Amino acid sequence: MFKKVLIANRGEIALRVIRACRELDVQTVAVYSEADRESLHVRFADDDVCIGPAPGRDSYLKIPRLIAAAEITGADAIHPGYGFLAENAEFAETCRASGIAFIGPTPEQIRVMGDKASARRAMAECGVPIVPGSPGPVDDPEEALEFARGIGFPVIIKAAAGGGGKGMRVARDPDDFLRSFQLARSEALSAFGNGDVYVEKFLERPRHVEFQVMGDMHGNVIHLGERDCSVQRRHQKLIEEAPCPVMTPELRERMGEAAVRGAKAINYVGAGTVEMLLDEDGSFFFMEMNTRIQVEHPVTEMLTGVDLVKEQIRVASGLPLSVLETPAFRGHVIECRVNAEDPARNFQPSPGKLEVFHQPGGPGVRVDTHAYAGYTVPPYYDSMIAKLIVQGNTREEALKRMQIALESFVIEGVKTTMPFLARVMQHPAFKDGKVHTKWLELEGTDLLKEPT
Amino acid sequence: MFKKVLIANRGEIALRVIRACRELDVQTVAVYSEADRESLHVRFADDDVCIGPAPGRDSYLKIPRLIAAAEITGADAIHPGYGFLAENAEFAETCRASGIAFIGPTPEQIRVMGDKASARRAMAECGVPIVPGSPGPVDDPEEALEFARGIGFPVIIKAAAGGGGKGMRVARDPDDFLRSFQLARSEALSAFGNGDVYVEKFLERPRHVEFQVMGDMHGNVIHLGERDCSVQRRHQKLIEEAPCPVMTPELRERMGEAAVRGAKAINYVGAGTVEMLLDEDGSFFFMEMNTRIQVEHPVTEMLTGVDLVKEQIRVASGLPLSVLETPAFRGHVIECRVNAEDPARNFQPSPGKLEVFHQPGGPGVRVDTHAYAGYTVPPYYDSMIAKLIVQGNTREEALKRMQIALESFVIEGVKTTMPFLARVMQHPAFKDGKVHTKWLELEGTDLLKEPT
Repeated sequence: MFKKVLIANRGEIALRVIRACRELDVQTVAVYSEADRESLHVRFADDDVCIGPAPGRDSYLKIPRLIAAAEITGADAIHPGYGFLAENAEFAETCRASGIAFIGPTPEQIRVMGDKASARRAMAECGVPIVPGSPGPVDDPEEALEFARGIGFPVIIKAAAGGGGKGMRVARDPDDFLRSFQLARSEALSAFGNGDVYVEKFLERPRHVEFQVMGDMHGNVIHLGERDCSVQRRHQKLIEEAPCPVMTPELRERMGEAAVRGAKAINYVGAGTVEMLLDEDGSFFFMEMNTRIQVEHPVTEMLTGVDLVKEQIRVASGLPLSVLETPAFRGHVIECRVNAEDPARNFQPSPGKLEVFHQPGGPGVRVDTHAYAGYTVPPYYDSMIAKLIVQGNTREEALKRMQIALESFVIEGVKTTMPFLARVMQHPAFKDGKVHTKWLELEGTDLLKEPT
Repeated sequence: MFKKVLIANRGEIALRVIRACRELDVQTVAVYSEADRESLHVRFADDDVCIGPAPGRDSYLKIPRLIAAAEITGADAIHPGYGFLAENAEFAETCRASGIAFIGPTPEQIRVMGDKASARRAMAECGVPIVPGSPGPVDDPEEALEFARGIGFPVIIKAAAGGGGKGMRVARDPDDFLRSFQLARSEALSAFGNGDVYVEKFLERPRHVEFQVMGDMHGNVIHLGERDCSVQRRHQKLIEEAPCPVMTPELRERMGEAAVRGAKAINYVGAGTVEMLLDEDGSFFFMEMNTRIQVEHPVTEMLTGVDLVKEQIRVASGLPLSVLETPAFRGHVIECRVNAEDPARNFQPSPGKLEVFHQPGGPGVRVDTHAYAGYTVPPYYDSMIAKLIVQGNTREEALKRMQIALESFVIEGVKTTMPFLARVMQHPAFKDGKVHTKWLELEGTDLLKEPT
């Protein structure tokens, strides 16, 4: 086991990792930006090092400073948390070159999954279903149309250099296709200086269903069930739950088997998440793999009783997985991300000092947070101030429990997303489990307003 | 189901009951003393009524005021919590006479279990083992000696009018017995004006093992496993855990069956706890039954996944139990009572304002509290400010998790028992599960001191 782990992160995940290290009798080093000097992760760690001014690029993203901090304090491993450098292959490589264990997969595994095209290739090669699409850019409209007919309408035409919705067009029939194809190409050209486009199958109302996987250095790879993260806004997850409300044992078997197969194909070590889209007809497709611990990992921890962060540290030190098959599930679990944002103003960040802070308690309630009364939410980082996770014996019990927990979580001083989240818990479509990745933006706009 | 429940209590249990009511869509009424005006239970309830000045006898113990508060607010049920009037048969009777449901057993059930002699009789009648003892006072030394020989040495001679250790003598052989018998009688006479003494079997190092039972109005009674509460100081529980470290499936079967038999014998309805002493040789004896929810109920909730307070409300409204047999257990659970007390000064209360308050989070951690930064712990009530409950897959994991949680629970402004509790978690005897009800006072004195 490691002697001393440096946590290259801040906020609740830094506290979470420190706690796991302490349970394993491993010493910890906190790093912090000047803005985080008073943060609890600094207080709880055995050692601490200031690594620069507030913006991430000047501190939490500075690889040489992190390595230097590890060397100065004698840390023999680094846990990257999520965000910042967690999926940066160069960071993992630099750790390796410096003789410091990186608590996560190898640089090669990060790299293959970090690039969308190479990840799709790797998954297709081992037989994991991927969203059908052209293997590369297509130039000729007729050739593209033939391909679209082959995979079936609707399809989506996407700029190869794209992002942010620019150069993306949905086509529902051949006429529509030819028109959209030209539009997408010219949009792509003007937006990115590159008119290359791909053609992909378009899923109308897919659910985001991801599988938690864990691998060790002894060839063991298991999955720990799924999480449904369909409630999103601009591709940001707001609510995660498990089991997925439309999951069947047979479908879990197939999707879980695909996730494990994909991870095994690259000899995956550590905690990872295989994100898939589940279509209304029950077909599913690999989307991407996140090669790190995720924000929503507590959902799986409450569902299975497995401490994923301790497990990450154990396997990174060479120990085998402590569970070798998918554990039994305990009821139903939901997580809400509590952000210092104002939903009525387009989720605008609301940094500031927390004047009052009282967390809900009671059965089945977990709160992971670095916040407390008197803490000032800085404007420099993401606006999540707490993760509220609840478990119930049934989905119905969990939904109600979450609603009450949100309503009795007292935070004063900043605006938060809690009233909005409490309304989602009571929305008929969400209660019925009938949501998809576009639901909130297409059908949930009434949820954004405070009821009058 | 009830429409509106009045909670005749304060502190964390008032919050706990409000939360359960809200999950059941039942309205709530908070009552409060003048000292508790700013308390969270007042804020979270739908209605609230001030019932008098601070000392319990002028507010939380005033039956007519509680009944009036229920009538004014239209509450159709009262939850008594624990302490105060929770085991007061007259209160339950007054509720009944006023047409208000008492969320707990009947006045008759409270009464039979509230009196030590009638409880022993009721249990003996249905074959639940009780500590062997003389059925009444014994006057004649030779007759008493014969009785002592019958039940076997050591025995304890107890003043019938006794309490607080006065008039109590342990005898280990016949010579010792005759001497102690006379001493106990004369001590009893001088202390209480009544020289009557009983003779009872003396257990050297018993464990306190209690079984959680639940009954409904349809004749169902189940147990939900045991809790070991052997770490006590002056008969006050400090730490509770489940499963009991020395329990075997066979012993649980026998003790659980006895607990259920005892509860069934009085047609018990609601949540109750059958407290037993478990001797070193594996024999066990009924001690008393608590006819209410207990402070340590979260241990059983985390162990079984059953929400005991919701279950109490359900059965009081006439619904059947939602679980009809002992659920499967989930790992190991420990609770520590976090009190605003100074262990180094004989656990002297330390009321005052909480300046900083940050609760631990992470997997398997539950905190039930009414406290928050800025809250002032009043001097009028018991000094418990939080219950910290942790679950692990093994006892070892739970112990470590509790230690880390205690060390990362930040409370500033008052002295707390947390550093002491963290030391208990690391004590070899506690780690080995080798403690008994007299352990802390006989062998744990070194734990009271801060290490230098």
